[in-house]
Order: sequence, then structure tokens, then C-alpha cells
Amino acid sequence: MTTEPCYDVAHLGHVEVLTNRFEESLDFFTRVFGLTESGRDEKSAYLRAFDDYEFHSMKLTRHHTTGVGHIGYRVASPAALERRIAAIEAAGYGIGWTEGDMGHGRAYRFADPFGHVFELYWDTKTYVAPEGERAALKNIHQRYHGRGACPRRIDHLNLLAEDVSKFRDFMVTCLGSRITEMIQLDNGRLGGCWFTVNNKTYDLACTEEHGRGHGRLHHVTYATDQREDILRAADIFLENGVHIETGPHKHAIQGTFFLYVWEPAGNRIELANAGARLILQPDWKPVVWTEEDRKKGQAWGLKTIETFHTHGTPPVKA
Amino acid sequence: MTTEPCYDVAHLGHVEVLTNRFEESLDFFTRVFGLTESGRDEKSAYLRAFDDYEFHSMKLTRHHTTGVGHIGYRVASPAALERRIAAIEAAGYGIGWTEGDMGHGRAYRFADPFGHVFELYWDTKTYVAPEGERAALKNIHQRYHGRGACPRRIDHLNLLAEDVSKFRDFMVTCLGSRITEMIQLDNGRLGGCWFTVNNKTYDLACTEEHGRGHGRLHHVTYATDQREDILRAADIFLENGVHIETGPHKHAIQGTFFLYVWEPAGNRIELANAGARLILQPDWKPVVWTEEDRKKGQAWGLKTIETFHTHGTPPVKA
Amino acid sequence: MTTEPCYDVAHLGHVEVLTNRFEESLDFFTRVFGLTESGRDEKSAYLRAFDDYEFHSMKLTRHHTTGVGHIGYRVASPAALERRIAAIEAAGYGIGWTEGDMGHGRAYRFADPFGHVFELYWDTKTYVAPEGERAALKNIHQRYHGRGACPRRIDHLNLLAEDVSKFRDFMVTCLGSRITEMIQLDNGRLGGCWFTVNNKTYDLACTEEHGRGHGRLHHVTYATDQREDILRAADIFLENGVHIETGPHKHAIQGTFFLYVWEPAGNRIELANAGARLILQPDWKPVVWTEEDRKKGQAWGLKTIETFHTHGTPPVKA
Amino acid sequence: MTTEPCYDVAHLGHVEVLTNRFEESLDFFTRVFGLTESGRDEKSAYLRAFDDYEFHSMKLTRHHTTGVGHIGYRVASPAALERRIAAIEAAGYGIGWTEGDMGHGRAYRFADPFGHVFELYWDTKTYVAPEGERAALKNIHQRYHGRGACPRRIDHLNLLAEDVSKFRDFMVTCLGSRITEMIQLDNGRLGGCWFTVNNKTYDLACTEEHGRGHGRLHHVTYATDQREDILRAADIFLENGVHIETGPHKHAIQGTFFLYVWEPAGNRIELANAGARLILQPDWKPVVWTEEDRKKGQAWGLKTIETFHTHGTPPVKA
Repeated sequence: MTTEPCYDVAHLGHVEVLTNRFEESLDFFTRVFGLTESGRDEKSAYLRAFDDYEFHSMKLTRHHTTGVGHIGYRVASPAALERRIAAIEAAGYGIGWTEGDMGHGRAYRFADPFGHVFELYWDTKTYVAPEGERAALKNIHQRYHGRGACPRRIDHLNLLAEDVSKFRDFMVTCLGSRITEMIQLDNGRLGGCWFTVNNKTYDLACTEEHGRGHGRLHHVTYATDQREDILRAADIFLENGVHIETGPHKHAIQGTFFLYVWEPAGNRIELANAGARLILQPDWKPVVWTEEDRKKGQAWGLKTIETFHTHGTPPVKA
Repeated sequence: MTTEPCYDVAHLGHVEVLTNRFEESLDFFTRVFGLTESGRDEKSAYLRAFDDYEFHSMKLTRHHTTGVGHIGYRVASPAALERRIAAIEAAGYGIGWTEGDMGHGRAYRFADPFGHVFELYWDTKTYVAPEGERAALKNIHQRYHGRGACPRRIDHLNLLAEDVSKFRDFMVTCLGSRITEMIQLDNGRLGGCWFTVNNKTYDLACTEEHGRGHGRLHHVTYATDQREDILRAADIFLENGVHIETGPHKHAIQGTFFLYVWEPAGNRIELANAGARLILQPDWKPVVWTEEDRKKGQAWGLKTIETFHTHGTPPVKA
Repeated sequence: MTTEPCYDVAHLGHVEVLTNRFEESLDFFTRVFGLTESGRDEKSAYLRAFDDYEFHSMKLTRHHTTGVGHIGYRVASPAALERRIAAIEAAGYGIGWTEGDMGHGRAYRFADPFGHVFELYWDTKTYVAPEGERAALKNIHQRYHGRGACPRRIDHLNLLAEDVSKFRDFMVTCLGSRITEMIQLDNGRLGGCWFTVNNKTYDLACTEEHGRGHGRLHHVTYATDQREDILRAADIFLENGVHIETGPHKHAIQGTFFLYVWEPAGNRIELANAGARLILQPDWKPVVWTEEDRKKGQAWGLKTIETFHTHGTPPVKA
Repeated sequence: MTTEPCYDVAHLGHVEVLTNRFEESLDFFTRVFGLTESGRDEKSAYLRAFDDYEFHSMKLTRHHTTGVGHIGYRVASPAALERRIAAIEAAGYGIGWTEGDMGHGRAYRFADPFGHVFELYWDTKTYVAPEGERAALKNIHQRYHGRGACPRRIDHLNLLAEDVSKFRDFMVTCLGSRITEMIQLDNGRLGGCWFTVNNKTYDLACTEEHGRGHGRLHHVTYATDQREDILRAADIFLENGVHIETGPHKHAIQGTFFLYVWEPAGNRIELANAGARLILQPDWKPVVWTEEDRKKGQAWGLKTIETFHTHGTPPVKA
């Protein structure tokens, strides 16, 4: 029997990134990375890429350390939100309602077994560009300002979890996510898993935590329109003294063109371009990569850099 | 009350293109445009872009004239197909079942009021790359062969209709399509309308028929990974004597980078790149363009070429 | 007998552009076009692209009208300068020495028969990047700042002359320029001529003056590293309300990818990318284009826009 | 006293590459790399990039091993050739005249102290495209065929020498080359040196031989128009089972975007794109890189792969 795909969750909405170097991180994200600040409260700056339709896609929050505060997904309808909450609560992942913040209305929170906090919401605040930020064409949510790397929209995030299989169950249960690709280790465990709730090839990935950390972030990613935007961004990062960890290169998994840097507080940030690749097939079968496959390195042979397996935020105390 | 979005139809699957110069058209589509022939029967060649997951995305059929034979969309599940058929039949657009062809199983056919035949199907044939066409990476459905323009996948088509509003009702009723952008003429009519069933910015557009034709095709489009692929394709078309109608340039509507050519039999074919733009917002409001807006030309000011308003296939008899 | 090519003149150094809207022009050239101001005196701002090695490549001068003030070429050696002066004076084009300005030492001035003033100089001032503008890599003369269109270096200029053949003689005599391409009109006249003193495909072009102007400028051009830089610049121009005259497209003549805009005072400014094309052949024969050839439009068929034949600076009084 | 630059040598013309897998190498260079065979004799195939103006830029020769047969540079004039021969003979590097081959007339041969054979020639054979290879635009020497990686023209080569300083003297004496960049080792030796005879940033590089080889080749490079051509080529190499050694990435030295592969017989072949960077300055001072500088890796931090320091052709016997 073919079950129907779940379309209750519309898309990844925003990620709260924690920083213990707020001013430096904010300077990086706005001047160098090219996001725009759309709001500010006592603890946080609300940031957005030029074609994100919501008020913000990143909430940058002052904190005593780094990592991810929470992850917000927007649902497809109020009814879909109710269905999701029922499923989340039945599975025992639920936390409860929050009132939302500057960028959206009330949201239902829940957590995975590894300490990452998620929220689902329907009520959102659409970004209205102020004078000076209005796009020349009415189908773009903010003008292409061309400042810094200037990505178009938020793309995905990657979380670390000690048990990727368990995390997979969490995502399928709570968000109705589909699995698009995964790494099957020789020891029978999942090494990584890529999820999507829509036609994007992935909006969240989970890779195995090797550093005994808890609730850690591997990276947050924004999408550029072209691969050339990423090559250009590499020069901008270079000229601004940003630590380039690896790339530009092309992932074997998902085939995205990528570049990883560390923002001043140490959170790993990615720029990525998927080309025209989408997952449109409703009965898509997950692509399974073995350790043998992974030994070939990235698509064009680049060996994965050591820190990619160990660095997460917050750092783990020695 | 917010109604729930309809996700019954998964994606545009294939377009049947008619040609009265079969061998020349086939040579164009395979050698110059860069599609691959995956099958052939008496009347048709089945063609595909390298990352289409189905057996074919274009059925090129010998005919006494040019234009579109039929348009196939794949549904999200068998149950979704039943829901769609019920809606189609209730609205009186239904034709009935066909047995399918080399690329998919049985399909339900229906027609718009302007003579375009559509079909919906669930049972499909997934492309299995023969030796020599297998991709180096297991998440691509055929190797990147690099032959000709080499687009990644089918993207959309554009149909001509004498009453775009009526066509819009047809799409909403039959496919559950959402309207992403449209042209509102000063005379109160719709000049054009862009539809999607998923997160693509559009999979079908309809523009007003000005030539008294019936059931005509404006163009069929394939997506490239990068804008540079389109600039490169322009040189390939130039060197192969293909008629370049207009572009490369960027559309104001939808913001896609485009290039239009006429294949040897006269059907207009487009290469397009949307960058990272997707319609992820579940409550997207259609962007409305006025005649005043349209006077500015394309995004960077290119005036729309005259033939773009008049040329469709089949040609209209004088 | 094969004569030896002349290598006395090394390269185009700078163009003085006149503006009757100094502040607006300066804002355009620095913030939108992406040049950097390296100096200022009472009447002029000295501007440079990030990898120009000299102090400036454009001198933007307040004036009662628009157009070109003078054109500076740097010679290959002091001895070469003497040889050039001898040739210029023998031909009667000479004016005499100036003391130079903020960006270079003394220069020898001369003029073509159509009112354009040239100068040759050896003594120059190399740009030394101040703190904050130093490149991360020591082989670039200023950091890649990524501001605005951010071209790499000055490329060429185009001057209008009533008799292109006469202008050609001037260039060959004074600069030892080679002719790389030209337009041969059906009436026996030259419609345009492209010159180079080095391996660039051209550093100066001359096209026929159709507007009864005198000493007019057609355009000044800067080179970008990639075609994608030009597509990106088109969006920047669009978002900043800059008049895009034509492009992006590819020239048939010289094959350069181009984009033409008018800066606020009306001077036509181009961004161009020649790819890897160079004229390395020492016995290069000029490529001759006929009117028949030109009817095909630009490389991919774009028709040349009417203003391209008529607009020059300063404007001609009615 | 400023001496005048030497312009006697116009450009790198061709490189003879030796292969002990002739058929496989030829298939790689024509079908995958995208060169065109313009001639064949008993021992060699003559190959060219689509916009090389001469008959060939690579002579691929059957041999019992791999490496470089000889390197040909074309001079600027017959008189320049005489001047060069006088200088070469005076320095004791001379060998004598050969009759040339299928691609050019008589040539004067000479050798560096490390076993690499060079030749200078004036008489050449210009490529005349046969029917089917004629370009649509008359300023390109062959049509853009789009087959394989399809680079535009030969760019440079890199030779290994045990004493780079001595090699430098050889290049300055024989070709009048200028030094554009170099690596100064802490031990006082030169680690590498980049040379040019024209405005290209380099046409030949020499790096220190670490493998006790003699007369070895490090790599031969062709230039693409855009960086995107190189990213696309990476996929073509991947799909054709070609060993990708390193890249795509950007060199710190010279700033070129690069990709290195090994052709089937083991010779290292590079694709490179320099953007709009040229050395136009007549009094250019060599950029000097220290070991400290080199520790930063390539421009965006990529560590140089180990084989890059050891692999040369022919391989050294154990």
C-alpha cells in the first residue's frame, strides 16, 4: 500500500544562532556574509537574506557560548499545525507553546532526544522592505543589495546527534520529513541523514556526533543563485580574514556546491548552490552511501578536512 | 478561513512535442540541445534530460504539423489521482483513461477549453541508465554527458489560450495549481498566468493567444544548473545554425534567466535558470504585473521581441 | 618584407571623464560601479579599479558638460617615449609637455584631427594600498572589496570620429597601434576600427560619428573577471536606478560579453569580459566585417539599439 | 638606467607531449579534454584548442615513456629570431636548426641545463578550419564545438629543474622572458619561478625537481574562458574516470583558478582561468613569495596535495 506523502510542514523558517561575540558575529553576518538586520531586541538581532519572505531567517542571540538556540519550521496551514502537534505529543517530544517573537506569532516547541529545540508555527510576519530596500522587481522581497556574499535565502542546517537513527525517527514523526540521502556505516549505524519537507533536496541534515557534545550545531547554510556567487564569496571571506574551513567544492552527497567558513564566534556557516536539482519524485527512494563510497572523498575527490568531523558548536570542554 | 493547499499533483512529467521534421528535430534535441533518447516506437522518440528520474520528459512525435500533443503530470499518490479525477469529472473536463505508453502506465486524460490535452498518472517507469550512461555519483539519474546544451531536467511549458482567466480556472480545478504571478491587462483581462503544483516558481504558464490559433504551444523549457550553461548554450546554438529568437536575458516575471530558440520544425524551446528562487511560502499571494510594469521590458530592459507575441505552434494558416 | 611590430606603448593608462553632475557621477562610480577613490583635487577625483596598478585609471572631472578630457597611455620605456614623440611631431599631431597630475609625472600631449587629446608618459605613480585596502594576496594591487560591480581593471575606450580611416592613421602613427578588427562599409568608408598596443584584443575603438559632434566619447570600459560578474552587475544597476542601455549580450566583433549603462551625467560606461581571448599572433590580420555581416546583429542575434548609434558625450546641441 | 623590455618572442606556440598509451591519451585529449586533431603523421597527432590560431598547440607523440618532447615558442619577427639565436648561441645553449614539422616551418632548437628542449620559429602554419569546423563568427579560428572541456587556447607549461635560479637565467637569456612571480625558499634557493614573454601573467613556470628526475614535465595547461567552464569540466572528468589530482581551486600565486588531472599515460594536465588579470606594467617587479606565505596554502586555504610535489613525467625509476 502506498501511503500519501505528508505536506504538513512547508519549510524551514529560521535558525537561532548563539554567539559569545555578538558584535563581531553581527558584523560578519551583515557586512561580510550579506544578511540584512530587520529587527533587534535586547538579546537578539533578526537577520534575513534578500529573498527570504519572512521577517527573519536567522535570530542571532547573545549568549555565554555558541551553537543553536532553536530551529523554526513554518507549517502549511493551521490545520496542519494541529496534526503535527498531535503527532509530536503522542510521541512524547512535546514541550508546549511559546508566544513567538519579533518575527512570528505563537509557536509550538518540542525537542529531539539530543537537546535541539524545534518549533512549528503558522502565524508569521512577512518582511516589508523599508524605503531604500525595496526591490526594483515586485517579485523579490528585498532589493538585491549586493553587499558581501549576498545569498538569496536560508537553505538548511546540520545538527549533530549521537544516534542518527533515533534522530531520523524524530524528524519523520514530528515534521513528516522525507529522507533523501543517508550514510550507512559498516557497523550498521547511520552516519548521516538528509531530510526534506518539500521539494528542496534537503532542509536539515544530521550527522553523527563524535565529540561527546550535546545539542550541538554542525552548520547553518544559505543558498546562492549561482556557483560563481560562492567563488566570489571565497574572495570576500579571504579579504575579510574569515576562516575558510573547506571548499569551494562539490559535495558527493546531494551534489551541492559548497563553501564552509567559521563566523567570528566559531559557528560553522555554509554557502551552497544546488543548481536546478530538486526532489520532485513523490516516491523518492533514499540514496544510500556506504563507507566505501565515502572514501572517494567529495564529488571531485577532495578529502574531507579533519575539523569537519570534530568541530561543532558549542565546543566541548576538555 | 484558511483552506489547506492542495498537494495532489507532484510535478510536470512530460510534454509531447509534435514535429513535421522528425529527423531534424530529433537531431536538434539530442545532439545540440543535449537530451538523451531512451526509447523509440513507430511514431515517437522518448527523450530525457540527464537528471530527469522518469523514462522520458519529452515525447517527440512525427506529425503533419507542430505543437503540443499532450501534457503529462505525475500525481503524489494513487489516492491523490482519484481525488483529481473526481474534481476533473465534476467540472466536465474529463476524457477518460489511456493505457499509457513506453514511459508510464495508465493515465487519465482531460482537456482544457482551448484544445490542449492533459493527463495525470501515478504508474511511471523510472529511468535505469544503461552501461555507459551510469553516473559516477549515485544520486544522479544519468551521467552528466556534457553533450550540447545538456540541461538538467524539464522545467515548464507555456500554452496559448484565448481566455487566460478560463484557463486559470481549469488549472486550479484540475491540478490544484497555485498561481504565482500574473499579468493584469488594462482591459480587465488576464494577459498571462504562471502556475505551480509544487515549490517550483512555475511549471506551466499560459499567455493570451493573439493569433487566432487553437490549442497552441508557446514553448517548452528545460532547466540548467547555472546561468553560464545558458551563455555557453547560446554559442552552441549559434555554431549549429539554430534560430535564436531572444536572450540570453533575465525575465522580469519570475526572474528566470532565459534563452529562446526555435527547433528545426519551429517549436519554441527555452533554456532557463531560476537560481535559488523557490516558492516555499504556503500562503503566497500572486504577484500582479500591470501593462505599465510590462512597458519596462524584461528585467534589465530588453524589449520583448515581436515574434514572442505572435509565434506559436502549430502556425496559423493565413 | 616583414617589419617588426611596435611595442613602444605599453598600455592604456587612464581616461579623463568629464561630468556636469560631479557628485552623482562620483557616487555612481564608487558605490555602484565599484571603483575606489585614490585622490582628489579641486576639480577632479582620481578613481581606480581594484587591480589597476597605477594610482588611477579614471580622472573624473567637474565640467560644464560631459565627454572625455584626455586619454593617457603609458609607454614601455623612456626611450620608447622619445621614439613616439619623434613620430608624433613628424606627423604634426604634437601639442607638447604637461607636468602630469596627481597620478603620474610629466606627459607628452597630442591630439587627433577630431578633437580628442591624448598623452603619453613613462613616469607614473604606483598605487600603494592604505591599511584596510591591502589585499590578502600580495599579487593584487588592492583588496577585492566586492563593492558594487567591482571590475578588475580599465579595459578600453571608444571614441567617435567623422573619418575613421583618418583616425586609424593617427593611431598607427602615434601609438604604433595594431588594428585587430574593423567594419568596412559598402560606401568604402570604415565604420569602425579596433586597436591594440599589446596582447589585449583592443584598448581603443573608434566608430563613425553620426551626430555632427566633435571630439566625442562613445564609452569607457572596465573589465570583469567573469561573465557572471556582469550579470550580477546588471542587477546592481537595476536596483540603483541606473539606465541600462543594452546587454548583457556578446559582441560579434571581438566576442566580448558586454553591458552598457549611462552614468548619471550621461557618459556611456561599459563592463566587458573577453574570456581567455588575446591577440598573441604577431602577424595578426585585421578581421574585416561587412555591412552584410553586421545585419546579423550581435553574436547571439541581439539587434543594436538605436541610441548606440546616436548617443555620445557631450550631447550635440539641437 | 631603464633598459627596454624585450619583445622578441611573441608567445608559447606548442608543447610536444610524450605518451606510452597513445590511443588512450589521444581519446582523452580529443573526446574528454576537447582538443581537435588537425593532423597526424606516423608518430604524432597534432592537436589544438578551438581558438589557437596555429595548426597545433600540442603534438602528442608515441614514445616508450611520458613527459615533454620539446617546447616551441613563436617569435615576433624574422629579425627577432636572429637576435634570439645570437643570444642563445653566445650563452652556449644552442643546438641548431630543424626543418619543422606538419605545423610550422624551420625552427631553431636549444636546450636548458636540465634536459628540456626548446625551439623558436617564425614560419608557421595557420589553422584553416575545414567545412564543419568553421566558426559562425569570423574572429574565431575554429567553431566553439562544445565537445568535452573545450578550452579556448594553450596557456602555459610547468617544467621541473634541479636549480630554478639557473633555469631562470636560461629563460631570461634565451627568450627574454620577464619574471612575474617567484618563490624564495628559506635556504636561499628559488622554489619556483613564473615567466612571461608577453602580457599573459605567465606562459611557463619552473618548479624545483624533488624526485631526482631529469628533463621532466610538471604539467601543460590550457585556458578556459570562464571559471564555470572548469567546474563543468570537473564533472566531465569525473564521469569519464579521469584522475582528478586537485582542484578546482584558486592559486595564491598568479591567482588563477585551476583544475589538475592526469591524462591516461600520467602526464599532468591543467585547465586554468586567469580572469581579466594581465601583466601590462612594463616595469613590473616580481612578486616574491616566502615559505611562510606558502604555508597558508592556496588562495582559499586548500593545502597543496602531496603528489603535486612529487609527480612529474616521466616517472623516476625506483
